[in-house]
Amino acid sequence: MFEIKYKDGAARSGVFEVNGKILETPYLFPVVNPKRQVLELKEIERLGFKGVITNSYIIYRDPGLRERALERGVHALIGFDGVVMTDSGSFQLYHYGSVEVSPSEIVRFQDNINVDIGVILDIPTPPDAGYERAQRELEETVRRAEEAAQLDRNMLLAGTVQGSTYPELRERAASRIARLNFDVHAIGGVVPLMEDYRFAELARVILHAKRGLGHSKPVHLFGAGHPVVFALAALLGCDLFDSAAYALYARDGRYITPGGTFKLEELRELPCSCEVCAEHSVKELRSLEAEEQERLLAKHNLISCLEEIKRVRQAIYEGSLWELVAQRARAHPALLEALRVLRGYSSWLERLEPVTKRSAFFYTGAESLSWPAVVRHIERLSWIERRGDELVFLPEREKPYSRSYRIASSERYHICVVSPVFGVIPLEVEETYPLTQHEGVATLDEEQLSFMRRVVGEYARGFKKVHYHAELEFLGIDGEPFEDVSQFHTGGGEELKLRALADYQLGRGAGEVLFAGARAEYSRRTGRIRRAFVGGELVATIRASDGMVVPTIAGAERLLRLRYPRCRVVVAEEAVEFAKAGKSVFARFVVDCDPEIRAMQEVVVVDESDELLATGTALLSAEEMLELERGIAVKPRHRRR
Amino acid sequence: MFEIKYKDGAARSGVFEVNGKILETPYLFPVVNPKRQVLELKEIERLGFKGVITNSYIIYRDPGLRERALERGVHALIGFDGVVMTDSGSFQLYHYGSVEVSPSEIVRFQDNINVDIGVILDIPTPPDAGYERAQRELEETVRRAEEAAQLDRNMLLAGTVQGSTYPELRERAASRIARLNFDVHAIGGVVPLMEDYRFAELARVILHAKRGLGHSKPVHLFGAGHPVVFALAALLGCDLFDSAAYALYARDGRYITPGGTFKLEELRELPCSCEVCAEHSVKELRSLEAEEQERLLAKHNLISCLEEIKRVRQAIYEGSLWELVAQRARAHPALLEALRVLRGYSSWLERLEPVTKRSAFFYTGAESLSWPAVVRHIERLSWIERRGDELVFLPEREKPYSRSYRIASSERYHICVVSPVFGVIPLEVEETYPLTQHEGVATLDEEQLSFMRRVVGEYARGFKKVHYHAELEFLGIDGEPFEDVSQFHTGGGEELKLRALADYQLGRGAGEVLFAGARAEYSRRTGRIRRAFVGGELVATIRASDGMVVPTIAGAERLLRLRYPRCRVVVAEEAVEFAKAGKSVFARFVVDCDPEIRAMQEVVVVDESDELLATGTALLSAEEMLELERGIAVKPRHRRR
Repeated sequence: MFEIKYKDGAARSGVFEVNGKILETPYLFPVVNPKRQVLELKEIERLGFKGVITNSYIIYRDPGLRERALERGVHALIGFDGVVMTDSGSFQLYHYGSVEVSPSEIVRFQDNINVDIGVILDIPTPPDAGYERAQRELEETVRRAEEAAQLDRNMLLAGTVQGSTYPELRERAASRIARLNFDVHAIGGVVPLMEDYRFAELARVILHAKRGLGHSKPVHLFGAGHPVVFALAALLGCDLFDSAAYALYARDGRYITPGGTFKLEELRELPCSCEVCAEHSVKELRSLEAEEQERLLAKHNLISCLEEIKRVRQAIYEGSLWELVAQRARAHPALLEALRVLRGYSSWLERLEPVTKRSAFFYTGAESLSWPAVVRHIERLSWIERRGDELVFLPEREKPYSRSYRIASSERYHICVVSPVFGVIPLEVEETYPLTQHEGVATLDEEQLSFMRRVVGEYARGFKKVHYHAELEFLGIDGEPFEDVSQFHTGGGEELKLRALADYQLGRGAGEVLFAGARAEYSRRTGRIRRAFVGGELVATIRASDGMVVPTIAGAERLLRLRYPRCRVVVAEEAVEFAKAGKSVFARFVVDCDPEIRAMQEVVVVDESDELLATGTALLSAEEMLELERGIAVKPRHRRR
Repeated sequence: MFEIKYKDGAARSGVFEVNGKILETPYLFPVVNPKRQVLELKEIERLGFKGVITNSYIIYRDPGLRERALERGVHALIGFDGVVMTDSGSFQLYHYGSVEVSPSEIVRFQDNINVDIGVILDIPTPPDAGYERAQRELEETVRRAEEAAQLDRNMLLAGTVQGSTYPELRERAASRIARLNFDVHAIGGVVPLMEDYRFAELARVILHAKRGLGHSKPVHLFGAGHPVVFALAALLGCDLFDSAAYALYARDGRYITPGGTFKLEELRELPCSCEVCAEHSVKELRSLEAEEQERLLAKHNLISCLEEIKRVRQAIYEGSLWELVAQRARAHPALLEALRVLRGYSSWLERLEPVTKRSAFFYTGAESLSWPAVVRHIERLSWIERRGDELVFLPEREKPYSRSYRIASSERYHICVVSPVFGVIPLEVEETYPLTQHEGVATLDEEQLSFMRRVVGEYARGFKKVHYHAELEFLGIDGEPFEDVSQFHTGGGEELKLRALADYQLGRGAGEVLFAGARAEYSRRTGRIRRAFVGGELVATIRASDGMVVPTIAGAERLLRLRYPRCRVVVAEEAVEFAKAGKSVFARFVVDCDPEIRAMQEVVVVDESDELLATGTALLSAEEMLELERGIAVKPRHRRR
């Protein structure tokens, strides 16, 4: 069973429980060759791997191996107690055109040798295959998947998405595979894309497969074994990887790093601190006998892969995976191209992006301007109820802006800072993550300038009058320049700020139902709003760390005036008592929810009659909590008195 | 003595010989506290460090330490046989406002305790100090430097550049320090810039100091101990670093990576493979007693610093340091800002940038367009003798372009590819590094579009007619669109191509003297020009790997028709016989040279009467070969028959 613990982008970090054994995801399966294994399994285990993948077809075809496997099981055969996944001969099918086993026979064989996770025998269509062929082979793969799904078995089973480089085929295949209730979803036929550095196409294939597959099962990107691609693939929602590369590259004398691969003779130093590199100089490695060199390189390569997987997991946990991908994108322009291609998928990505994270948003270049955090901000600008006839644009200052300028928006003046990262930041919402929690650059590039001009121009529409600070002259804003900011200081604006915050975070109209007539209580230390009252009743607190509006039960009651299912997570009857008691809401009990809910957002928990039960923080986005069968959907905060 | 072996950007990788002990540069000195050392010196040595830095003032002030140091020397005192550098109390001066020792006394003391490299007692002016104060303190530092430079001593001595955040003061101070013949040049007073992530200002300080310091001595960036900054500082020409950060951060429970620092409680996993991280989980580290945790964190931190230094050295060797800096710039926007600030220094950087490298040029974002390789290309476009009245612009295709299009420039049509990375690439020179050896992206950003428009517009000036391929419509080129490329195929153009190559690589007019009337011999395998003959005599070969024109002795004779000192390296009388015998030309024998010579360029070696001696490859740029006292300036190729 698969459970999501942390999210960033479309990435998930969690646990995949396989026959009582736990794999932390994203997880990398080292590929083990049952005939000739360069690294001992004990060694692989010692390095920290809890699961490996081997090839059931090779075992099936070798009478000796086959007999031993059937007798003692695959774990004893290879000498590994952890999770053993097996491939089914697709690789051989791809390379030799045929295999001598039927699709259902090899699935049965995997089950018979006590494999933990088996794979169907799919047809791997190469990139750029004719559309007809891709479609035909895909049909056959789906047919085999349907057949395999019906077999009695003890093991978990993976169904594979094919479709060559045709996005629509990938998406269609994925939806059909998703219906068959496999335990793992696999994306196949992508190794040639990775070998040829066609990362943009790889990204497209993953994205379209993911759209069809949904969120409930772990997704295995077959053959992704080089660390250069882990961060990107994880960002797009891949959970499992397998690496034969560590061994294959070692045989060629190639040294793997997350920044690329080197031939041993291209290296003057070993830029790594693993046990191999700490104990050997590059000179020593070069002068070793072939077999020993291969073994040591394989060990280094595998450690390097593991290190990157750990880095990816840590980045998901802290919410810095986009920034890690941006770093990796500088290892090769083909990875940067892939990052640029994501622009076309920002609305899908936005649906999965958490609204608040442990780490700040870092601008990393032109691509950052189309990341979900920015796209979401631009969208949400239109959620804020318009007040003030006159719009005032200020240049960036130290954050928080309202304190640097000692000013706030009022009924007359709507005051915004023009930001090279977020376009326009209304002062009312500036404390919301990531508007305060971001770092940009002072020297702007043309992409930023044109982005600022576009957002500013669109935002100014509909205001009676536009004022802009003279320092913003370079943006060519249609309005009146000024130098003295203090003229826009009118005071008031407290309720207006609260309402804007709620609109921006919880959707159109949330401000009115939650904060109409509200008054604020300020923190003595920071001078920022801490709590909001309506008619003497506390309706919400504003979290200091990320500016999030956290409604109380009284606030939640007010939010329920918004039309169903706004702001709501609806739990099934059997979970009502738990929710009432202030326990976590598990995803499998969520029967409906506001489709606009994003991970880390504050939500209202109700029963199926729309009765308020509790409030809490969503740990999953709307579509994930509807689809997942395991894990927490809402972490409780307040329960109804 | 300092010797450069490999170059990239303004970075140098080489060896610094100190009392017979060798430090490979860039080198990092771990800071050792003579009173309380968290990591044993044996441990530091085992990790691979050949030199450490400690504080002579602390030793001086402690009667016990002082006595032992004077008796047995500093090496015995701290228990380390390698290079021992000492600081002189500037740190204490900065923090406590005064020290109880005179500037010359502490220099003498360092010498008396057998320090390998001492440092003068400079006045560290903080960033943003008043100009007056910065100037006054700087004067005092220079006075002390002059005084110290005159003292008799056995040890090597470092003179420090101050000047706060005033570029002109830094540059002036540097020129004055440079005159005093210190063994090491240090840049001081920058720790607060690093602590506050003011990397753009740090870059400016380094660049201006370097301009004043010249190239002959290793440059120590004082207090630069975090790996986040090593690649950038090395790129700008810093050779030596010291790290107290590894220990200071450890005391605070902070975990260093080249991507940034983490508090131990922010980590869920240890994204590293060093001996500490391989043997401990983050949970274990957290639960250790304070002292043991500090020791293990210090070890990890120091290994992480060392790993990055190795990565930087490897990047200089292979010529990928710019790309590494671009990766690191995505660890924090303040580093990206520093990278953007380099735009203003591209002509200084260009003078030090090698013309060919082991690795390809990777486009990494808007900043790449102002890297020296691109700036140089734009400049050199104007070096090519204009032929052809009509200019033809083609869109990018697979490289080599002339083969994809099956076309070449001719007397009538000058054919160029419009490149989003290099602007305009005339087919004649496309094989020259890095024009063929570069990777870009297919999805362009606004910065690239405006760059292409600008370069294309400027290049088109002066042509009678401009044709552009219809696919280039989006650039708004002033000319005639076309779709059929074959109309521009006229044949011929062999001499024209050779002449353009020589102009582009060796400067204006080189094509005429070297290749007037030349005919080419082609490689049967690649179809590319391999050798060029004039009147039956071989004058040059074209290197397959990077398209470089390599003149023969006959070719060199022709190049000498260019006005002195074009293309020449002039050696002193005493080295003439060595050069004639086909031996390397050492930098200390270079008396003059063409100021346009760049590292890795082909040059002609002559004596002081301008008699041809040999040809070879410059390993240093012009200004370096004139300034350096050690190392090879020209690697020999052909000697005069």
